[in-house]
Amino acid sequence: MTLHFALLGAGRIGKVHAKAIYANPDATLAAVADAMPGAASDIASHYGCEVRSIEDIELAADIDAVVICTPTNTHADLIERFVRAGKAVFCEKPIDLSLDRVRECLRTVESTGGKLMVGFNRRFDPHFAAVRKAIDEGAIGDVEMVQIISRDPGAPPADYIAVSGGIFRDMTIHDFDMARFVLGEEPVSVFATASVLTDPEIARLGDYDSVSVVLTTKSGRHCSISNSRRASYGYDQRLEVHGSTGSVAIENQRPISVEIATRTGYTRPPLHDFFMTRYTDAYAAEIAAFVEVVKNGKAPSPNGQDGLMALALAEAALQSVKEGRAVAVSEILG
Amino acid sequence: MTLHFALLGAGRIGKVHAKAIYANPDATLAAVADAMPGAASDIASHYGCEVRSIEDIELAADIDAVVICTPTNTHADLIERFVRAGKAVFCEKPIDLSLDRVRECLRTVESTGGKLMVGFNRRFDPHFAAVRKAIDEGAIGDVEMVQIISRDPGAPPADYIAVSGGIFRDMTIHDFDMARFVLGEEPVSVFATASVLTDPEIARLGDYDSVSVVLTTKSGRHCSISNSRRASYGYDQRLEVHGSTGSVAIENQRPISVEIATRTGYTRPPLHDFFMTRYTDAYAAEIAAFVEVVKNGKAPSPNGQDGLMALALAEAALQSVKEGRAVAVSEILG
Amino acid sequence: MTLHFALLGAGRIGKVHAKAIYANPDATLAAVADAMPGAASDIASHYGCEVRSIEDIELAADIDAVVICTPTNTHADLIERFVRAGKAVFCEKPIDLSLDRVRECLRTVESTGGKLMVGFNRRFDPHFAAVRKAIDEGAIGDVEMVQIISRDPGAPPADYIAVSGGIFRDMTIHDFDMARFVLGEEPVSVFATASVLTDPEIARLGDYDSVSVVLTTKSGRHCSISNSRRASYGYDQRLEVHGSTGSVAIENQRPISVEIATRTGYTRPPLHDFFMTRYTDAYAAEIAAFVEVVKNGKAPSPNGQDGLMALALAEAALQSVKEGRAVAVSEILG
Amino acid sequence: MTLHFALLGAGRIGKVHAKAIYANPDATLAAVADAMPGAASDIASHYGCEVRSIEDIELAADIDAVVICTPTNTHADLIERFVRAGKAVFCEKPIDLSLDRVRECLRTVESTGGKLMVGFNRRFDPHFAAVRKAIDEGAIGDVEMVQIISRDPGAPPADYIAVSGGIFRDMTIHDFDMARFVLGEEPVSVFATASVLTDPEIARLGDYDSVSVVLTTKSGRHCSISNSRRASYGYDQRLEVHGSTGSVAIENQRPISVEIATRTGYTRPPLHDFFMTRYTDAYAAEIAAFVEVVKNGKAPSPNGQDGLMALALAEAALQSVKEGRAVAVSEILG
Repeated sequence: MTLHFALLGAGRIGKVHAKAIYANPDATLAAVADAMPGAASDIASHYGCEVRSIEDIELAADIDAVVICTPTNTHADLIERFVRAGKAVFCEKPIDLSLDRVRECLRTVESTGGKLMVGFNRRFDPHFAAVRKAIDEGAIGDVEMVQIISRDPGAPPADYIAVSGGIFRDMTIHDFDMARFVLGEEPVSVFATASVLTDPEIARLGDYDSVSVVLTTKSGRHCSISNSRRASYGYDQRLEVHGSTGSVAIENQRPISVEIATRTGYTRPPLHDFFMTRYTDAYAAEIAAFVEVVKNGKAPSPNGQDGLMALALAEAALQSVKEGRAVAVSEILG
Repeated sequence: MTLHFALLGAGRIGKVHAKAIYANPDATLAAVADAMPGAASDIASHYGCEVRSIEDIELAADIDAVVICTPTNTHADLIERFVRAGKAVFCEKPIDLSLDRVRECLRTVESTGGKLMVGFNRRFDPHFAAVRKAIDEGAIGDVEMVQIISRDPGAPPADYIAVSGGIFRDMTIHDFDMARFVLGEEPVSVFATASVLTDPEIARLGDYDSVSVVLTTKSGRHCSISNSRRASYGYDQRLEVHGSTGSVAIENQRPISVEIATRTGYTRPPLHDFFMTRYTDAYAAEIAAFVEVVKNGKAPSPNGQDGLMALALAEAALQSVKEGRAVAVSEILG
Repeated sequence: MTLHFALLGAGRIGKVHAKAIYANPDATLAAVADAMPGAASDIASHYGCEVRSIEDIELAADIDAVVICTPTNTHADLIERFVRAGKAVFCEKPIDLSLDRVRECLRTVESTGGKLMVGFNRRFDPHFAAVRKAIDEGAIGDVEMVQIISRDPGAPPADYIAVSGGIFRDMTIHDFDMARFVLGEEPVSVFATASVLTDPEIARLGDYDSVSVVLTTKSGRHCSISNSRRASYGYDQRLEVHGSTGSVAIENQRPISVEIATRTGYTRPPLHDFFMTRYTDAYAAEIAAFVEVVKNGKAPSPNGQDGLMALALAEAALQSVKEGRAVAVSEILG
Repeated sequence: MTLHFALLGAGRIGKVHAKAIYANPDATLAAVADAMPGAASDIASHYGCEVRSIEDIELAADIDAVVICTPTNTHADLIERFVRAGKAVFCEKPIDLSLDRVRECLRTVESTGGKLMVGFNRRFDPHFAAVRKAIDEGAIGDVEMVQIISRDPGAPPADYIAVSGGIFRDMTIHDFDMARFVLGEEPVSVFATASVLTDPEIARLGDYDSVSVVLTTKSGRHCSISNSRRASYGYDQRLEVHGSTGSVAIENQRPISVEIATRTGYTRPPLHDFFMTRYTDAYAAEIAAFVEVVKNGKAPSPNGQDGLMALALAEAALQSVKEGRAVAVSEILG
């Protein structure tokens, strides 16, 4: 018998998860809810599921799990409601923009014995996962220095930026999670520098578009992160881990691998232009992992604590930019 | 309203097409037939469709199109039956091992006004398709010389080889079709040499495992094809087209793009180990193209004539091996 | 004490060897001869050596070895004169355009006990040499199928083509030697097809610009060669050897490895545009190998017999084009 | 008439420059001096030049230029002596480990009207130079973010580290210069973190082996530098510049480009294992540039000021490590 899923939030990322749930042979997309009825009914008609209210889903006996894709400011409330309702919960990052609110929410999850998985999709990408696997298998010895480059084809709309919590909580947070995924030790210190190079409007909104971060761990491992909101050549997502006996790296994925050679040189097409096409396989694997949690009682990973830690690194980075110094993670976590 | 498809043949390639039909939003897999009831019911239960007999499907008013994945010796008969029954037909290559039988079958298709599309899946692979697109856009000028390398991870089982019609009709036929897809002119002459290098059992069956072919066109374009039934490093599928102002090439696809560097060098994982994982996207695009044929009356491509021509090149190659000379295609086609 | 070399022929390839001799710590370029006094004196002033006549060099007690870079129709005569004069001889390919003349010349070399090395420079390129080394070390098991692609940036001048002996003796001859270098067995059969695609003037001269060749050995190994006189993107020189347990390949060398990514894609510069920059290291290693022959009595390799065999394959290819059939090498060698 | 050069210091890097001078058609290596007579006479006999004392060279009328390759603590003194003696001076980096001493030395150079070029060889590597050229040609728009990865195959001997001035002045200094070469603006702020991960002996010497640096410029451009003294896979030297309309990158150079594919994957050999083989072309181009300075009066580049600025960045990095904050370059330069 397949698991019955409800989707909360039928926007861009909601559609991504709807597709992944539909394609998973162990899951059935049973219901969808959204404040915009049109968005919900689009998904409902496409995948043959029902439009329901959040309240109905909360009370429904036939729903095993919910996937939360609503705006960030509703995440913590919905997590709490649905773990209390006994549903397994998958929630898109971040849990909340406030560390205190995240902590409170995680306490609720813990006290109810609920299951919460957080949406850091890159861990499930087969290429990023292969890096972690190589490390785990000892292919490069002890991890020493990590390089993460992550650049978007273009900045999101101004109204999104305005409520995003800023580039560190919205974009770099994926890289903070990836750093933790491969470093093998918790970062203890964060230095960040940030500027606006692509669009003055971003500065007006109090945010940045170009970011460099250095994380360090207790034993002296480093991780460098480089972010830009603008990469003319597409969605740039790279990772390299340098270890004591070797190094492991992944290159960018290309939708088409053709190369044309002429008098002026050799040319390959640009990268993927969107995270949805780049991470199609990752979203499918992420839902499959959540199915394992719901169906077979596997411990959720990444979990609420992973969500909290990535957010704490974002907070530390923001403070580092303001103060021009390395900020200890312990200053943030208290 | 979606189109209703029936699948004839629930073996290895039948499963590939079942999955592609299921995932296509414009198609519904309504029925499946197979001489082995267990194979049919596996697909039926997995995708929620009915097991029916071929006769039932032939008479069914609710079936728009059939996808023929049965053994080769049944293809021509089934094509004739189903075009007469007014169904659109997609048939796996080859139409038949006998050129005369193929011709007869195509006459029936023509006289009934039926629609027949033939399964040369590589044309639908986004990478191969990008080569053709580059040529069509004039990126390399006039086509001059084509190189096709195509090697399987390992030979099929002996009982498959025994009924396959031999490597030229079974394996090289894909390359003959690809050559025609990109050469821009019909081949007029075929030279082939063939040997057994991987397994003496293949020689015992009267077949070859290692093949080199040179095709030439009227204006003097060349195409080289290199096949082996055994490539230790995976499913090797390459194409390069050299033109008057440039060259276009595709590299092998890799399931995982990670690279590990150590004292002994830089290592990447092997290629795909199977055509099904390598050509997942191609099979989906192929079914989508067939949907266009059925739904919107688009002319089938590749069609029966394409199937005939690829087979004729295979015949010419076989004769060339026997006689040690270049064989004119006109000798085969009469 | 360094060896004293004389250079016969101060043209394009003569200059390449002059530079390699000059840079070799075990060799001194002592003399240069050329029918054009200006060409000889250019080299003499650049490298501080003497201009002498061929007769002087022949009689000189202070010359250990000669490097023959004169026009092809003088090669055999000069080889004979200088082995008789007791000098070690390095001669550019081909020894002669006539197989009979080559045989006669080699008999003289043998009867005098002279030392003759023939200039197939690619064997000394570190990348091509690494392919052979990988085979020798067993990295790919038994050799099965070889692919050679070799394309020039542009055709030589018409007056060169007129006396070149044709593309097979002038250009493909390098690939015939490379095939022999890596096949591990002598080719027994040659099929070739040839056409003119780049310039009708080449047809008027009775030559071809586009060539496809298939060689086979007794045990059934194949080698495919693809040549064109025109590659818009530079000097294209590739080799791949497929074996029973693996495959080894070399990619084209690039003078600059930079890659630029923009909205329209990723672009790398073209290849080397000339054999002299592409094979700088090979020419140095070739002279170093000849020094070993002269100084330490090492057996010359490639030797006269290698020159003969490559020419025989060229003859067979030419006959194959004319007769449209595979030609046995034994038909040529008698 | 060629220029006459004297080499001061016949150690490892001295040999590199001796070879480059010898091969340069516009330069003659006339003299060599070294505190170790054996080292000097080795070079003298190999290249046919004289062993002289530094005093002799200082007074010699026949010497146009000197190349200083002596230990760092003698650099500033020798620069001053030889500009006063009217010789053009090329000096290996760094000019001195003390900023004050460097400033004093540069004042002397200025007051004498002498010519001083400083040895940052990477600017002359054709691949690094191509990055700068792409920027200058506008291929990537405005520079925004620079990534430099530079890792040695292994740490130098302990006694070298002890007098090296530490990793920032010895190794990262090349990357500081490269950052300045491509950033298009002076760095105004430096953050660095450093640790010992490869060998505790390095910690005992008060140095580091693993370094991450972030530089920022006034307009908000960033440069990340990642250094390690140990890379198992060879001499790792990469650069990538991300701009407003594109990105330009260079990959590592490989001595052999062969790739072997087997059941376990695709393997390429390691990188160069030494800076001398990796940068052979750069050293030749560097000497050629110095010849231009001496012969044609071209302004030296990189010059003394470039040497000073790279050292100032090294000082700032060291202070940043100690204080855990971004250090303004103005704090160092005063």
